[in-house]
Amino acid sequence: VEESWKLLRSEVGPDIKLFQVRYDWMLNPRNGAEEKMVVLQGPDASNTIAVTPNSEIVLVRQYRFGTKEFTLELPGGLMEPGESPRENAARELAEETGYAGSDWTYLGKVPANPVFQDHYIHHWLLRNAQITENVNLDAGEAVEIVLMPVGVAKREFLNGLFVHPHTISALLMFFAGEGLL
Amino acid sequence: VEESWKLLRSEVGPDIKLFQVRYDWMLNPRNGAEEKMVVLQGPDASNTIAVTPNSEIVLVRQYRFGTKEFTLELPGGLMEPGESPRENAARELAEETGYAGSDWTYLGKVPANPVFQDHYIHHWLLRNAQITENVNLDAGEAVEIVLMPVGVAKREFLNGLFVHPHTISALLMFFAGEGLL
Repeated sequence: VEESWKLLRSEVGPDIKLFQVRYDWMLNPRNGAEEKMVVLQGPDASNTIAVTPNSEIVLVRQYRFGTKEFTLELPGGLMEPGESPRENAARELAEETGYAGSDWTYLGKVPANPVFQDHYIHHWLLRNAQITENVNLDAGEAVEIVLMPVGVAKREFLNGLFVHPHTISALLMFFAGEGLL
Repeated sequence: VEESWKLLRSEVGPDIKLFQVRYDWMLNPRNGAEEKMVVLQGPDASNTIAVTPNSEIVLVRQYRFGTKEFTLELPGGLMEPGESPRENAARELAEETGYAGSDWTYLGKVPANPVFQDHYIHHWLLRNAQITENVNLDAGEAVEIVLMPVGVAKREFLNGLFVHPHTISALLMFFAGEGLL
């Protein structure tokens, strides 16, 4: 039952700015059918649950271009060449919010979307996060910082306030790890 | 602070099989910078928490082509033209698992990924799900059905077994709605 699909051949597709498209022709072990699958190649990314000394989580409110709506998310972003996941998390947190610190814990990773993306999102926890850096947004960013007490964030998490998939998976790992669920 | 980005113009990008690419030039209200953003246009989709009379959740184990790994997910898939979200959920559930029923509850929706996708995933609950249909997989599918007691699924949810982002968001809505978190 665990029989894998076999990769027959790959073809380079278009570069669509955020991703490099690849097409994989796969052989279905169930029926021998040959299927063309699209894979979006991109770098790994990270996001961070930064908790202040007052037990508040640092969130960012920003306009998202896929749905043309504002969302409340964890700070994070794409890994740059040569960065480790932790360096990536710390840089994105500092650039978007000014928060930084030294007490980092790796929570785990999830595939961005295993159906058609080849990369992963790394989830981090930073305890005792403090503002020590200057916010330094990319030209394509505009961000409002929101501090939310951990208990309120848990209630809002259960109420469906957070809709970005990787903010949800990171908060799940955090709340479960803290024994709060 | 809530000032929106302004859409300056759009351009049709390549059709990459699963998605139609669109490029949007957006004006950043923070700095007046003009930014080219990629949007993947596609249909909405649905997934379903189908609970059997024995309080088991119907899951599907399948090979995913983005990460080249097996995942355990809720049954679901893309909406076809003319389908309602509920018809879509019922069709995908029946085709992938053979389960069907009449006691449907809408749990809510999440954006697939608000950063670069324009569509939504609708989450459904079907109570008293029974096998009444013949499994009828697409040529590009190979699926193993797994029944998992609700209590075990909750423990595995907290332990990180589920990594597909929309399986996570659907299970969160279900467990929270049942008062299990």
